[in-house]
Amino acid sequence: MQVNGKEQRTIWLKPENPSVVQIIDQRFLPHKFVIEDLCTLEDVYIAIKDMHVRGAPLIGAAAGFGVYLGLLEGKGLETCINRLRESRPTARNLFWALELQLNALEQSKSGDLIAAALECAQRIAEIEYENCKKIGLYGLPLIEDLAKIKKGNPVNILTHCNAGWLACIDYGTATSPIYQAFDKGIDLHVWVDETRPRNQGASLTAWELGQHGIPHTVIVDNAGGHLMQHGMVDIVIVGSDRTTRNGDVANKIGTYLKALAAYDNNVPFYVALPSSTIDWNLTDGISQIPIEERDDTEVKYISGLVDDEIKQILLTPKHSHAANFAFDVTPARFVTGLITERGICDANESSMQGLFPMH
Amino acid sequence: MQVNGKEQRTIWLKPENPSVVQIIDQRFLPHKFVIEDLCTLEDVYIAIKDMHVRGAPLIGAAAGFGVYLGLLEGKGLETCINRLRESRPTARNLFWALELQLNALEQSKSGDLIAAALECAQRIAEIEYENCKKIGLYGLPLIEDLAKIKKGNPVNILTHCNAGWLACIDYGTATSPIYQAFDKGIDLHVWVDETRPRNQGASLTAWELGQHGIPHTVIVDNAGGHLMQHGMVDIVIVGSDRTTRNGDVANKIGTYLKALAAYDNNVPFYVALPSSTIDWNLTDGISQIPIEERDDTEVKYISGLVDDEIKQILLTPKHSHAANFAFDVTPARFVTGLITERGICDANESSMQGLFPMH
Repeated sequence: MQVNGKEQRTIWLKPENPSVVQIIDQRFLPHKFVIEDLCTLEDVYIAIKDMHVRGAPLIGAAAGFGVYLGLLEGKGLETCINRLRESRPTARNLFWALELQLNALEQSKSGDLIAAALECAQRIAEIEYENCKKIGLYGLPLIEDLAKIKKGNPVNILTHCNAGWLACIDYGTATSPIYQAFDKGIDLHVWVDETRPRNQGASLTAWELGQHGIPHTVIVDNAGGHLMQHGMVDIVIVGSDRTTRNGDVANKIGTYLKALAAYDNNVPFYVALPSSTIDWNLTDGISQIPIEERDDTEVKYISGLVDDEIKQILLTPKHSHAANFAFDVTPARFVTGLITERGICDANESSMQGLFPMH
Repeated sequence: MQVNGKEQRTIWLKPENPSVVQIIDQRFLPHKFVIEDLCTLEDVYIAIKDMHVRGAPLIGAAAGFGVYLGLLEGKGLETCINRLRESRPTARNLFWALELQLNALEQSKSGDLIAAALECAQRIAEIEYENCKKIGLYGLPLIEDLAKIKKGNPVNILTHCNAGWLACIDYGTATSPIYQAFDKGIDLHVWVDETRPRNQGASLTAWELGQHGIPHTVIVDNAGGHLMQHGMVDIVIVGSDRTTRNGDVANKIGTYLKALAAYDNNVPFYVALPSSTIDWNLTDGISQIPIEERDDTEVKYISGLVDDEIKQILLTPKHSHAANFAFDVTPARFVTGLITERGICDANESSMQGLFPMH
């Protein structure tokens, strides 16, 4: 997508030095656009763990490049895989990407493991790029149909967290239908949940929509239910970090609350996801998906711009405890449909298998 | 309640000068404890409008004192009432308090309107003090019963916003049963929703619970659903800014989302309210209760402590729009019960009239 009018992806090989991987360090957005060089396995581990990059598809792609950088350093394949596995627990794509690398390197005939790892990392990124593009194509008719009903009034779309191109390689998952509808001239407006505690909505989704010129309004996470009660939301589209074979969806904490409100107000609630987020081994999201618990300083402190500097401020009493669960699970019964790279299906096993019959 | 071990209310007549009213300026909590002198009608108007004081019962009490200060300045009764009426639209208690003043002054036989206004303002504060104390007595058995079931494990209570003593004169509404249960030695723990955008939970509820020594954990507003799915919440208790005769409850934005989650997980959801918040003229909360929309800077910026100073930082892209609805309505069907100064009733007209038969 565009950054200051220039085409940009979220992760790429440094043109002048192919033993370095570059990313947008998302911790500084929306205030500063910073590109970071990743040179080692540990650089990638830290970038995932400390959320320089985040979003399920991008975590997977970064892990793919992490294996390449680790091998370049002379580290063993097992060391690379084990280290990256520990970076974050919830997103399925991380483990999917590491499995792809493992298979690719086991099958490498040339014996040039480093070249094979690079080829696989680039393939992972390319798969996610293509998947996101197709998710947009399949999601587009949902917005087109709403535009017909709205008869010249903008289609109001609510999204939670950042399932935008910054979470992927390009296009995004939840945002891909939005970008493609906007580019076709459909009148739309996006309600952007700020998404505490890390504010991926207020800082990342608002920024990328703004860069693309898409009308949007930032709201606190508390507001969506009220908007839905008053007919101000036509559709909810979110992403997924892990989806079980029965259609339960783990996504950023708070997604479940929006799904409940959508259900109570007959607002369609769609989840956009590449199949790389589907964990076909799991049959119950609430009991089986591991939910990451992060440091309580992410709740107690928040950072933003003051006097042209990014600073961190304390929000709570100094000695109050805080808890910081990063994801929650939306049960399949609240999901209207899953938008995948092969089309839209219902959030249940038989419908999902209809699109992905090998599982 | 206690502040640094000293007994404290939220509003009082200045001991050395009874033509001045004092409040805790809540904008500086939890970082600084600031007492503000209010000397004029306009001081009170600003204190309510800009949220130096907030919380339905305290808004009502402040408005009562506002009439007294206005008359002291030589302003007419109508001027006082009209100005204070405009300060905030949602909380019923504001209008209730102004009606009490109007009646008191119309019936004042002595002719000393100023003395009558002061007497009425103090009576309003005393009514709310007594009501909150009784709400605690009636709510206490709910927590005692849960403590029996939990068999030595702490009772986990979730609350949203600040319906604590800072929102009232003392005790609080939602917190009154909590304080009284804690003081009886019941093992309990409070999940405190931070309550964006103004963070009344993270800054006020956490602070007052901490002052009283009550174990609590601050969570983002997104987290409650996840906690309830995992059995980590035994009861939700919130306050109300306006309650319709059929039991719909307007409260801080986001309350509705917690009610939905409680309903979906069979967690009891109680609303604690003095009858001064009941608007017997309204029969449908969603269509009839006016919802205040505040400035978008309250969403885009947030303040907190940095380098021992309270500073405001920017969270969003500078040019992104934000919307700021201050309340939402929880339909009566999601409310397990209303805890009032006359006991607990169901959230419906006949049960409410059982406790308040004159309406």
